[in-house]
Amino acid sequence: MQFTSEQRLDDGVLEREFTLGEIPGILWTPASAPAPAPLILLGHPGGLHRMYPRLVARARSSAADGFAAATIELPGGGDRPRFAAVEQARAELLRALEAGEPVTEEIVDRLVLPLVEKAVPEWRSALDALLSLPEIDGPVGYSGGVISIGIRLAVVEPRISAAVLFAGSFVPRSMFEEARRVTIPLHVLLQWDDEGNDRQTALDLFDAFGSREKSLHANLGGHTGVPQLAGDAAARFLTWHLSQPPTVPAVSSR
Amino acid sequence: MQFTSEQRLDDGVLEREFTLGEIPGILWTPASAPAPAPLILLGHPGGLHRMYPRLVARARSSAADGFAAATIELPGGGDRPRFAAVEQARAELLRALEAGEPVTEEIVDRLVLPLVEKAVPEWRSALDALLSLPEIDGPVGYSGGVISIGIRLAVVEPRISAAVLFAGSFVPRSMFEEARRVTIPLHVLLQWDDEGNDRQTALDLFDAFGSREKSLHANLGGHTGVPQLAGDAAARFLTWHLSQPPTVPAVSSR
Repeated sequence: MQFTSEQRLDDGVLEREFTLGEIPGILWTPASAPAPAPLILLGHPGGLHRMYPRLVARARSSAADGFAAATIELPGGGDRPRFAAVEQARAELLRALEAGEPVTEEIVDRLVLPLVEKAVPEWRSALDALLSLPEIDGPVGYSGGVISIGIRLAVVEPRISAAVLFAGSFVPRSMFEEARRVTIPLHVLLQWDDEGNDRQTALDLFDAFGSREKSLHANLGGHTGVPQLAGDAAARFLTWHLSQPPTVPAVSSR
Repeated sequence: MQFTSEQRLDDGVLEREFTLGEIPGILWTPASAPAPAPLILLGHPGGLHRMYPRLVARARSSAADGFAAATIELPGGGDRPRFAAVEQARAELLRALEAGEPVTEEIVDRLVLPLVEKAVPEWRSALDALLSLPEIDGPVGYSGGVISIGIRLAVVEPRISAAVLFAGSFVPRSMFEEARRVTIPLHVLLQWDDEGNDRQTALDLFDAFGSREKSLHANLGGHTGVPQLAGDAAARFLTWHLSQPPTVPAVSSR
């Protein structure tokens, strides 16, 4: 992990760009951090530059709550090399949508599954690097982005202890099975009128999650219209769960 | 409105029982109130004594946020005279549920509509009396209880400016039409596994509300299992909306 730039934002938050091998990323740490800060991984749909205004707003809010926040570029996103398999599927998806044809499960699988397969190990490597920094310590939360990446991370990455997920409908059927294996606390946001989403699919996915603690928060409006109160509630969910004392495995007294 | 008893709770909240004609009620006001407090009407399913522990907890929480809170007994609830029409329908409902038979719309209409017809004018009279007290001033929020009463109040009572509603499934079809006429901000709670609720009916009802600002919050667990974070979020919703500066109708400058 190489830091490539560093700046202080006007609220004192330290923003550092980094590369992890070929993957660009950004780390934000609170202005004053007396102790190592818990970390929130900020998911996004790909394209760090395009997403920067929303990402930095979420990072500032996390920093105000005492958390570090970090993100990395997705495979094929932003300045990273195109991801041919996914590009092809995305083109077919757009063609189907424009033609008013149904989006087949096969297209969704080819769009999402390779992205999950490639992105999840990258996020785990980023987590290794970030947690090795002295200014960061667990626990770790995950927030937003491609929901299938969030599901897979929640299943395979034990260092993630709570997640905020944005319900989207292009979810491979196999991810419903993975959803049943998720056990961490979940806060799921659903935009009730999201034109790109199938509401019933989102409700079914929420139902499938295996977590004993999960909540669904549906708000009016389209894809990017999450209201301020709803964003605040999602932040409070992470604050709550990342501020709990760590559960130390019971050690036998004998 | 006659006050019949008065006590200070350990957190300084003033609790006063009152009667409004034949209807018993309870008013809670904050320990220190430099100015008249906005009011939250606390709905419930009937039976003030039985519901008291939960009502006083909600009232204390409201008082901590600077709000007065008040409730009245429902027609046929608690010590009030039995409401024969509703009792009969309730008996038929229970018989249908026990027999595993479908609950007909006709039973639901006979159970809920007379209750709404009788209760809503009573709540409005209580509002008249409460708002005439020097320690209370608008705006007014409504929270919880029988959802059809909340819907009707939201439609007919212009002094109520925001409502928290608990989605329940025994909702007469005619209430869906009334739901479309609701325009105030709504925060709707749904217990995802509520054995007494039909989830799809609750989702359809949420969809029907005409409010431009509405959000649905689904949590795991049964009817009385609203998690603390969810209760806190509902309280913040009311605080937010009852703390907005009143919108003064524009007055022509000429």
